[in-house]
Amino acid sequence: MRADLVLVGFGNVGRRFAGLVSEVRPRLLDEWDLDCRITCIVTRRHGGAFRPSGIDGVRAADILEETESLEGLHDPAAGAAPRTGFDAIRLVADSTAPLRVLVETTTLNVHDGQPAVDHVRAALSAGLNVVTANKGPAAFAYRELHAKAGAAGLSFLFEGAVMDGIPVFNLVRETLPAVNVLGFRGVVNATTNHILTALEDGEEFGPALRRMQAEGIAEADASLDVDGWDAAAKAAALANVLMDAGITPHTVSRAGIGPQSAAQARRARECGRRLRLVAEGRRGAIPAVGPTELPEDDLLAGLRGTANALVLETDLLGRIVVGQLDSGLTQTAYAVLSDLVAIRRAARREAPARRTP
Amino acid sequence: MRADLVLVGFGNVGRRFAGLVSEVRPRLLDEWDLDCRITCIVTRRHGGAFRPSGIDGVRAADILEETESLEGLHDPAAGAAPRTGFDAIRLVADSTAPLRVLVETTTLNVHDGQPAVDHVRAALSAGLNVVTANKGPAAFAYRELHAKAGAAGLSFLFEGAVMDGIPVFNLVRETLPAVNVLGFRGVVNATTNHILTALEDGEEFGPALRRMQAEGIAEADASLDVDGWDAAAKAAALANVLMDAGITPHTVSRAGIGPQSAAQARRARECGRRLRLVAEGRRGAIPAVGPTELPEDDLLAGLRGTANALVLETDLLGRIVVGQLDSGLTQTAYAVLSDLVAIRRAARREAPARRTP
Repeated sequence: MRADLVLVGFGNVGRRFAGLVSEVRPRLLDEWDLDCRITCIVTRRHGGAFRPSGIDGVRAADILEETESLEGLHDPAAGAAPRTGFDAIRLVADSTAPLRVLVETTTLNVHDGQPAVDHVRAALSAGLNVVTANKGPAAFAYRELHAKAGAAGLSFLFEGAVMDGIPVFNLVRETLPAVNVLGFRGVVNATTNHILTALEDGEEFGPALRRMQAEGIAEADASLDVDGWDAAAKAAALANVLMDAGITPHTVSRAGIGPQSAAQARRARECGRRLRLVAEGRRGAIPAVGPTELPEDDLLAGLRGTANALVLETDLLGRIVVGQLDSGLTQTAYAVLSDLVAIRRAARREAPARRTP
Repeated sequence: MRADLVLVGFGNVGRRFAGLVSEVRPRLLDEWDLDCRITCIVTRRHGGAFRPSGIDGVRAADILEETESLEGLHDPAAGAAPRTGFDAIRLVADSTAPLRVLVETTTLNVHDGQPAVDHVRAALSAGLNVVTANKGPAAFAYRELHAKAGAAGLSFLFEGAVMDGIPVFNLVRETLPAVNVLGFRGVVNATTNHILTALEDGEEFGPALRRMQAEGIAEADASLDVDGWDAAAKAAALANVLMDAGITPHTVSRAGIGPQSAAQARRARECGRRLRLVAEGRRGAIPAVGPTELPEDDLLAGLRGTANALVLETDLLGRIVVGQLDSGLTQTAYAVLSDLVAIRRAARREAPARRTP
């Protein structure tokens, strides 16, 4: 079954996704009868291209690297090149492919989740399924977008929003039937965990942060991570999706880490404890993100470097742990891919009795 | 969709499963259109009953408790009462329900996996789907039984075999498309982990084991656990299912724990390490089970009491962690339930192109 993909955003995640799709094409075709074709790519700063016959995503990444523009890939016979995500969605909406999917990988705007939320709205209105690695839509507008997708018989998926490619939402939806999630508790931000690990090993905050920026682990503007915004957006997404909270990241009680964390991390370690940035939430309560001293027997205390893990508290199964010891771009790109397969599988089966897949 | 269930084995897991099915009946009907009806139960020592109109599983557990026999539940109009699992399978094979499922919860026979393996064979030959919480079939005969199920368009599922209700096999099958598992490493036996935790806290082996037997955590015959057989059967099942190993528990390199483990556990703790019974395997290599000293920063070192966790090493996602902090009968019974839902879902969708679900 052919799936025409429109890539809105073509940064690190989008490019790695394009590479991954190309690498696993035989497995997707053979195991899932899924034939993905990128027909449109649009970026904020490097223009866009639409080519109904398909764009080689790996070549697109190379051309972007060389020329800083995608314009050369545009098919002039297909009209004007798309300039925005909304242009791109309109163009792909006319495709006759049985599956049409928006792959949204713009970066998180923690103020209001835009323009990602509007991209998702526009895509669902135009009859496109949506996969996004951006936390914004699930963190700011899950209830509305989920309902809109359900009403249109479309999927709105975002596995990459919380723990890269490690299944969290797909885990609950596909493998935990009849289980209710009552709460969650986790270390979900790799950058701060990496910094806290360095601090407890004796490094100071400033040098640790600069080293991680130099190594590409932390962003040049690290405030999204160190101020706890990234973890707060993840906590909001988890609370919205798993516990119907209807909140935004601004609702989350939030504290970050800073220079004062170095002494705190070392003191904790001396007392046989570990300082970790913990995100937690319970059904009906406001989620919280903040540095927390954990006993070393706590599973989360054993997470070092970029390891992440989440403990889901459930009614039937008690506490379930899911996590990753390695995180990175390939993992996030994989999350997008796994959501595409979920859309392909949903297209095979009838909708369950009174629940959208 | 109606599913007629034949319960072969009606010990702790089978009875808890019967209770759970009754508790979550509305959710199964509402969310999955799955109407489970127990029509046959057979035990090794307490007889069996067949009642085409359905047996109340909770009442059956009560009656068994009171009278030590199931005979009173048998419908005389349905012929002779079943005496063996094979009798029961033959009886349910004649049902006209769209789904007919063997729910196999006999205990593990670590010598050859029997009679569970033969129960599964007979059920698949008779056109029944199979769910088992017994490790034997996947640990001794996975390749044959999986092929047999695939050829017949039936399911052979055993989520409860490794980590109770925590998805391991369903996780890989349903949420990790196109991912190859390269290896695994885990603490998968609750009893030995509970004992090792007590030993590192200062208790001796004999008293710790007797205390756990008194508390119902360890079996009266604890050799299956302490000699590493349970973990070896789980390692064989993981290697067979996730890495096509084609081995049995006897292939696994195996060492257990004993009185000598007390000093080793305390010494490890003094050196900032933890003694854990670790099961590990890699594609193409013989899996191993044995007591292993882990640095305290190892995620598995932080597992105390009956907590279990498994690290899957994969090609696309690096190392994935999945685990449970609480384990027990309800969790194992839930595994059976989640497999039933998987069978129901497989019945909704067409078979994928070249792969059985």
